[in-house]
Amino acid sequence: MKLGELGEFALIDRLSRDLVHRPEEVVRGIGDDAAVLDFDGPRWLLFTTDMLVEGVHFSLDYASPVQVGIKAVAVNVSDIAAMGGWPAHGVVSLGLPPRLSVEEVEELYRGIRRAAKEYDLNIVGGDTVLSPERLVINVALLGFVEKGRAVYRSGARVGDLICVTGSLGKSAAGLYLCQHPEAGAGPGVAAYLKRAHLEPRAKLRSGRILSAAGVTAMDDVSDGLAAELREICRASGVGCRVRAADIPVDYRVREVAALAGRDPLDWAFSGGEDFELVFTIPPERVALVEERLAAAGEECRCIGEVIPAEKGMVLELPGGRCVPLEARGYDHFAP
Amino acid sequence: MKLGELGEFALIDRLSRDLVHRPEEVVRGIGDDAAVLDFDGPRWLLFTTDMLVEGVHFSLDYASPVQVGIKAVAVNVSDIAAMGGWPAHGVVSLGLPPRLSVEEVEELYRGIRRAAKEYDLNIVGGDTVLSPERLVINVALLGFVEKGRAVYRSGARVGDLICVTGSLGKSAAGLYLCQHPEAGAGPGVAAYLKRAHLEPRAKLRSGRILSAAGVTAMDDVSDGLAAELREICRASGVGCRVRAADIPVDYRVREVAALAGRDPLDWAFSGGEDFELVFTIPPERVALVEERLAAAGEECRCIGEVIPAEKGMVLELPGGRCVPLEARGYDHFAP
Repeated sequence: MKLGELGEFALIDRLSRDLVHRPEEVVRGIGDDAAVLDFDGPRWLLFTTDMLVEGVHFSLDYASPVQVGIKAVAVNVSDIAAMGGWPAHGVVSLGLPPRLSVEEVEELYRGIRRAAKEYDLNIVGGDTVLSPERLVINVALLGFVEKGRAVYRSGARVGDLICVTGSLGKSAAGLYLCQHPEAGAGPGVAAYLKRAHLEPRAKLRSGRILSAAGVTAMDDVSDGLAAELREICRASGVGCRVRAADIPVDYRVREVAALAGRDPLDWAFSGGEDFELVFTIPPERVALVEERLAAAGEECRCIGEVIPAEKGMVLELPGGRCVPLEARGYDHFAP
Repeated sequence: MKLGELGEFALIDRLSRDLVHRPEEVVRGIGDDAAVLDFDGPRWLLFTTDMLVEGVHFSLDYASPVQVGIKAVAVNVSDIAAMGGWPAHGVVSLGLPPRLSVEEVEELYRGIRRAAKEYDLNIVGGDTVLSPERLVINVALLGFVEKGRAVYRSGARVGDLICVTGSLGKSAAGLYLCQHPEAGAGPGVAAYLKRAHLEPRAKLRSGRILSAAGVTAMDDVSDGLAAELREICRASGVGCRVRAADIPVDYRVREVAALAGRDPLDWAFSGGEDFELVFTIPPERVALVEERLAAAGEECRCIGEVIPAEKGMVLELPGGRCVPLEARGYDHFAP
């Protein structure tokens, strides 16, 4: 069977069996944004990894090496943020094509260093190898969270509200502008959206606030809102109803979508790489969360609610008609 | 400047500056087989990563996917072994070319699972992405060592003896036979050496014994004996004198080297991927180490001694003549 026929998520399901031989230290293994390990201290350890491949996750045609370095760290920090924790120590593997100059590799590391500093984490090791065609960057990251306070995908309960930080679709709109510089967006709009795509920021502070406020489930929006909602629904054994009219989409994203002849909601649901946090929370705690996020300069919007699993994943269109919310997130091996 | 002009090791030196912002938990950062982290428990945490790229570190022309999986885990465990520790938890990133079948990827994971079981470690997470041309595997591994008992490259002292476990050159001879099946080696010899190359084993038990016995410096022979000796000499600020006649080389390696018209010592010094352990130890402790290793079914040979840095790295040829020991280990970016 070809990888494309099975799909990324079914593949991971198949591979992830029988991988824990010593369960005593493993609070959570494969299946969340990061593994959770308990070494008997006051904190749990979080452990995650992400690989970026040139031409798949980034292009040096429009991303500078510094931006690629920033992104490689940010996507990993985002996984730690989605668990409610904070990052501490990372290791970086670089697969380097010989066509790169030493200066370009130093620029790449400048980006890694800058992001590491921003998120207050150490780079403590790595590996540097030859990769003949494509630049490949793998970061593995250790973080911490207070014992018992990790937020999983699996804690959503019927009646919880579904909320999202910031706004969605910016990264997809920025990618569109990178690929279509002729699209006609104003320079300010283009710079803002391209930066959102090329220099993503992990919502670390929001993740800490949300963990402390007792959200029930959380995920970072790396593969698009639809895919993350599906992950939460699947892990929690619930369904969801989401109101299209309440999805936060920046006016600049709407502007570029109009130029591109695209529905901005498609970018919000399927574009991915926004690295916002989507979470579920009992209704009585929403006001507290909104207040604390606002105090940190962060927005948050309630976009729907958790419903029983048998009702499925539903998108309520403006006007009230409900349609199935298709989980069309990014699949690496989709045909 | 091109990567090939600078070389892998100088590149790493350049990149590894200013990467630790929070030094309080970092016992050792970049520059040894694994980072050493102190989280205030009775054990130190070891953290390492290694990337394998198809066509660079392995070829699916002669390695089965199971063997590639075994190797990806073993090379990381070997780094933990070289610190004197034991592995505990790993995360695996796969960059998968679409030409691979689901069954091949499952075989790859079968190898990962088999090695994880052998070394008693958990796979707790990972990432699975598209890599258009080449299969890329990155493993990041956490391990432990008793507080204060990590063995670095930097502890060798003048007067210490230099010893190596097992024998060297088997992996290089095995690679030669994979690439030259017509070489004419007997089937038993070929199977033995090819397996040494394709299914390397980390010397975990030996590393534990050596750490407990108080060796002063240690490295795994991943890039060839010459490169590892250079690392130890550089980190410890010492030189070394090694006797060519005492380098342990298996008779099967000599046999294949004769067929290939190669000097078996070249394979021992520059071939790499033997994953034996090279270590330094005060002379009075050698007998104890030999005894304990023998009890575990492991051999060990003294091949030289640590000398002052100003005397350099010296190879004593049979007959007594001394020549500079060139550090010709594997360099990914060598022209």
